[in-house]
Amino acid sequence: MEETFVPLRGIKNDLKGRLLCYKQDWTGGLRAGIRILAPTTYIFFASAIPVISFGEQLERSTDGSLTAVQTLASTALCGVIHSILGGQPLLILGVAEPTVLMYTFMFNFAKDRKDLGPNLFLAWTGWVCVWTAFLLFLLAVLGACSIINRFTRLAGELFGMLIAMLFMQEAIKGLVEEFGIPQRENPHQAALSPSWRFGNGMFALVLSFGLLLTSLRSRKARSWRYGTGWLRGFIADYGVPLMVLVWTAVSYIPARDVPRGIPRRLFSPNPWSPGAYSNWTVIKEMMHVPPLYIVGAFIPATMIAVLYYFDHSVASQLSQQKEFNLKKPSSYHYDLLLLGFLVIICGLLGIPPSNGVIPQSPMHTKSLATLKHQLLRNKLVSTARKSIDKNANLGQLYRNMQEAYNEMQTPLVYQTPSGLGLKELKETTVQRASSTGYIDAPVDETVFDVDKDIDELLPVEVKEQRLSNLLQALMVGACVAAMPILKRIPSSVLWGYFAFMAIESLPGNQFWERILLLFTAPSRRYKVLEDNHATFVETVPFKTIAWFTLFQTVYLLLCFGITWIPIAGVLFPLLIMLLVPVRQYLLPKFFKGEHLQDLDAAEYEEAPAIAYNMSYGDQDPQARPTCIDSCEILDDIITRSRGEIRRSCSPRVNSSTPTSLEEIKSVHSPQLSQRAYSPRVNILRGERSPRFNGKGLEIKQTPSPQPSKLGHNGRGPSST
Amino acid sequence: MEETFVPLRGIKNDLKGRLLCYKQDWTGGLRAGIRILAPTTYIFFASAIPVISFGEQLERSTDGSLTAVQTLASTALCGVIHSILGGQPLLILGVAEPTVLMYTFMFNFAKDRKDLGPNLFLAWTGWVCVWTAFLLFLLAVLGACSIINRFTRLAGELFGMLIAMLFMQEAIKGLVEEFGIPQRENPHQAALSPSWRFGNGMFALVLSFGLLLTSLRSRKARSWRYGTGWLRGFIADYGVPLMVLVWTAVSYIPARDVPRGIPRRLFSPNPWSPGAYSNWTVIKEMMHVPPLYIVGAFIPATMIAVLYYFDHSVASQLSQQKEFNLKKPSSYHYDLLLLGFLVIICGLLGIPPSNGVIPQSPMHTKSLATLKHQLLRNKLVSTARKSIDKNANLGQLYRNMQEAYNEMQTPLVYQTPSGLGLKELKETTVQRASSTGYIDAPVDETVFDVDKDIDELLPVEVKEQRLSNLLQALMVGACVAAMPILKRIPSSVLWGYFAFMAIESLPGNQFWERILLLFTAPSRRYKVLEDNHATFVETVPFKTIAWFTLFQTVYLLLCFGITWIPIAGVLFPLLIMLLVPVRQYLLPKFFKGEHLQDLDAAEYEEAPAIAYNMSYGDQDPQARPTCIDSCEILDDIITRSRGEIRRSCSPRVNSSTPTSLEEIKSVHSPQLSQRAYSPRVNILRGERSPRFNGKGLEIKQTPSPQPSKLGHNGRGPSST
Repeated sequence: MEETFVPLRGIKNDLKGRLLCYKQDWTGGLRAGIRILAPTTYIFFASAIPVISFGEQLERSTDGSLTAVQTLASTALCGVIHSILGGQPLLILGVAEPTVLMYTFMFNFAKDRKDLGPNLFLAWTGWVCVWTAFLLFLLAVLGACSIINRFTRLAGELFGMLIAMLFMQEAIKGLVEEFGIPQRENPHQAALSPSWRFGNGMFALVLSFGLLLTSLRSRKARSWRYGTGWLRGFIADYGVPLMVLVWTAVSYIPARDVPRGIPRRLFSPNPWSPGAYSNWTVIKEMMHVPPLYIVGAFIPATMIAVLYYFDHSVASQLSQQKEFNLKKPSSYHYDLLLLGFLVIICGLLGIPPSNGVIPQSPMHTKSLATLKHQLLRNKLVSTARKSIDKNANLGQLYRNMQEAYNEMQTPLVYQTPSGLGLKELKETTVQRASSTGYIDAPVDETVFDVDKDIDELLPVEVKEQRLSNLLQALMVGACVAAMPILKRIPSSVLWGYFAFMAIESLPGNQFWERILLLFTAPSRRYKVLEDNHATFVETVPFKTIAWFTLFQTVYLLLCFGITWIPIAGVLFPLLIMLLVPVRQYLLPKFFKGEHLQDLDAAEYEEAPAIAYNMSYGDQDPQARPTCIDSCEILDDIITRSRGEIRRSCSPRVNSSTPTSLEEIKSVHSPQLSQRAYSPRVNILRGERSPRFNGKGLEIKQTPSPQPSKLGHNGRGPSST
Repeated sequence: MEETFVPLRGIKNDLKGRLLCYKQDWTGGLRAGIRILAPTTYIFFASAIPVISFGEQLERSTDGSLTAVQTLASTALCGVIHSILGGQPLLILGVAEPTVLMYTFMFNFAKDRKDLGPNLFLAWTGWVCVWTAFLLFLLAVLGACSIINRFTRLAGELFGMLIAMLFMQEAIKGLVEEFGIPQRENPHQAALSPSWRFGNGMFALVLSFGLLLTSLRSRKARSWRYGTGWLRGFIADYGVPLMVLVWTAVSYIPARDVPRGIPRRLFSPNPWSPGAYSNWTVIKEMMHVPPLYIVGAFIPATMIAVLYYFDHSVASQLSQQKEFNLKKPSSYHYDLLLLGFLVIICGLLGIPPSNGVIPQSPMHTKSLATLKHQLLRNKLVSTARKSIDKNANLGQLYRNMQEAYNEMQTPLVYQTPSGLGLKELKETTVQRASSTGYIDAPVDETVFDVDKDIDELLPVEVKEQRLSNLLQALMVGACVAAMPILKRIPSSVLWGYFAFMAIESLPGNQFWERILLLFTAPSRRYKVLEDNHATFVETVPFKTIAWFTLFQTVYLLLCFGITWIPIAGVLFPLLIMLLVPVRQYLLPKFFKGEHLQDLDAAEYEEAPAIAYNMSYGDQDPQARPTCIDSCEILDDIITRSRGEIRRSCSPRVNSSTPTSLEEIKSVHSPQLSQRAYSPRVNILRGERSPRFNGKGLEIKQTPSPQPSKLGHNGRGPSST
């Protein structure tokens, strides 16, 4: 990403790039037919359940001013507008935890102010949103997105851990409250007597842990031994909403023996009861807010603007990682501008604004990659079988497949269709064929295995379109109408879901993995190398890793502690932003440069923005993982954490370095696990895994190439 | 085991053999010093907690006639007597589930009989015990133990699964009853109102699942990545009693908010309250039992005698498996005779009798093997270090170590000390030394690694003595005095423990593993080969495995269903015994002989009974697994199930086949897991793991050697 601060230039370029493919965004989506529903429902569940949980959290923190209805409405509205008018359609919008946190702080502030009080709370937040939008416009116009890479892994991972801790805190708080009397209820109900409260609390424990443990188990279903492939894939993808359903059903088992109200369920007033919602008309009351508070609204607005800038852009980056081989350009500046408009709209409607969410955005791209893979594969397999039936030889087979592939590609103006990657694999297959002497004979199974070899031919590609985003946003909107059904979900199930979100976000977060490493017995540290692991484990001395991690942990606890301070806690984003100068100026005084580089290495990368008049013919294909089970591989690449991708040291990667499968395979000693694509060993530096002798790790000090200038290696938004 | 039915011969030989080493049994134990407490406490916990659980189960089934006090007393008494007077001191005695089941049947029978009623129940069981003892005497005298090998894996595993199902049933029943009103309580207590009952039930769910899940996790602590070796070993060995303690403590957390009686805790009347126990004086009432019932007592006695004969002998066999390299002779016949005496004593005291228990017996031997390994290792390591300090060369080093080893051996009459296994390893080490040119030079680390190579030198040996058995029985006896403390254990924790016992017994049970195989997707079946697996997976066609497993499952459900029949259910052991002729005559009509051999292969083996005038010099050492972490290896060998050892097809093993480490290692393709000792691949038949192509298993039909005559290949009780 080139840094440029020429006003409006970034936005102009973004618009130019995306307008070119706007029509195809829609036609491509429609052409996928009914299959588009698979990614849609997948993302719908992944979006809706957290939004409902946040709604419940907001309901408790704002004394009912905002509930799940508002969060769902916001997600739906912003999602619809973004899918139609937004730049990058792969980006999913929704209400996120930082928003909920800020609204909690603002409510605690507002309710104690005589001039504001809970009644004018939403009016005041309307002003906060106005200021936020103004700041976002400023950032977008000035092209601030181009410096997003200065926020290194250090800040991103710390923020991710902070969010995980906040989720866990919410889960525990919610469970403890299940034993007590809720705030705005009549304490003389039967369901609130001490004995029933105890039973309710225990029941809540059972339900929440039940959901947590079964959901965690279901996520690993793909690697189960039992069940057919389809079933395992289904459970891995839809296991979590299924478990929410199951545990909601379980909560009805004792229904005859317990009074109404046990267990406690999702609270939301009936959306059709008149006068239920005062938020929609908040715009009328905005004039009643005293001017002092209108000006004071600027402070939380700054914090929110910073958080949104960060979250939105990083979510967008993560959904456009290099491995996805996206073909359409990015659009950071314009999307930030649009976000400003969305924030104003939400503020004036009295609903909390939405922004780009992690992990749903990379999940969206991943599911569309799977979709594209299936479409391509079906086409090519049928083509190959037809050719084999007609006794074609190898050359003819490849030609037919290439034609079929080109048909499937989206015809964009000025775009030359890409090669199928036939060059490398053709060589190996041709070698195999000539060794068996069948080079000109009709192709048979020994030379060309239709199922396996086609999988190897297919690169990772993503079905880039807008339809899935629009449909999932509409489905979220339909949830508002489905509130009578959603109200049956026990709140304890949602607390369990919070804990689940916290735990799910940890793997892949290198900060967390470093903390675990601190507890690993020295004699067992070699086990870390047996899986995909980060390069720093091999290159940085253990003591340095320990000190670095300790520093990060102390900083994290500081941030977490600040969120407990009642009003001033709203400034916690400042502390995160402080990490940037700390990283750039303070840490190099304590840690060696190359160690810092390894510990804080990977920047956020995404697909190159290729202008449409380049020819593809001579471009080497990028990393092509084997897609035998594309979901498993891609699961490996994308993590659910806040932005950390499992990849080799990216600053040293350049696009012309092919990473063929054979090269990757040859490095693996038999002791490592048998993954077809294991990006973490830094093969590009020619390293092999160090030998270990059971007593500890041999640290090999390989000379590292010159680290490139910090922050300028990714291919971010183009500003040419 | 030679089959012989000459009366009293087996007993005479057993006595002869064991009397020779009786004195040394005690002195050897005392020489171990304070270290003997480690195996003692390990087995104490493994014995006591199940016995307490069975006591609780009995208390519910016999309306309080028998409680945990009686089961603990029986275990202690029988354990003490057996350790002092018994033949095989490695065998642990205790009250087992079949006994509890039979007593339940008998109580349900007795309480409805007008002439008996619950008051004469214990008197009647006294008569049952008399008959049982008589039958056991008969079996012992006639040398029936020599045909124990006719009970193949088929029967043993089915029985194991039946016990597991009964445990699970007990756990579920107990948990359901936590929601209801217990039978002999005043239903108007506060703690029994509907609201508190609901809370109690939910609390019970939390506690039992908490115990179950944490206990299961703690068992795998040895392979954890975190924590020091000592901590992990401690958690793996003592994790379960620790968890019982932890969850008992957790049950006190809401103590202030809940009425007395929540959660429900272990029931037992105060052992010092006068008149609390009528069972100790049951002998007086035995004359009041009508003669018809005295005669009728023969029927359940037959069943119990059969069960005891089976259980006791198999437990003894399992504690003397070949891998343990036991040096002292076995003593099946005499132990069965002693069991008869114990049964009479218990019956006359009105307590349920104890018999040899699985898995505690092999666990006992395993813990003593670990003890011996530690003692030997310390001695040899210090010797080696001293020699190296004195600049000894390789030959001198080995001589010193051999001397030290011989010192450690138990000096038995006529026994020549065994070689340390220096022959094989000396060669490899000498090779290594000569290749580096250091054959005559002082030994240094490159040639001889003190820690690692000594581990490889040490064979598995067991500290065979009587002290640990006596001490653990006394500790169990002390539990009776500690009842006021034990009464605090919540009953829900014990239900969780039942579920834990059920689940723990499954791995290693080939029947269970075959059931799982039925559910494994065909494309994933190769994963089974990646771990240690049974040979039949490779040699028997899948369809045959499926039919065999289905047959076993139907039979199992039949047995389980019979236990639900109120009175006639007492005859369920007959059905198990029926399996022997079914296996010998019926199954060969449906399955090929060699398939049956593989599916039902391993017999129960144990160490050869070596007479004391053999020289050891020319005997090849038996399989010597690397003892880097002896616990992990031995865990592998011994399973917790009812008697199935993970070993290669034993009928084809003969004692002169060395299985050196190199031979085993060379067979493993890199795709298999890296276990140092993996007995299951049938290397002795020269097989390699079949190649798999991801679509399914290639079944190689290797010609199998002539199966030896069924049932006569183990080295069982000697009758020479």
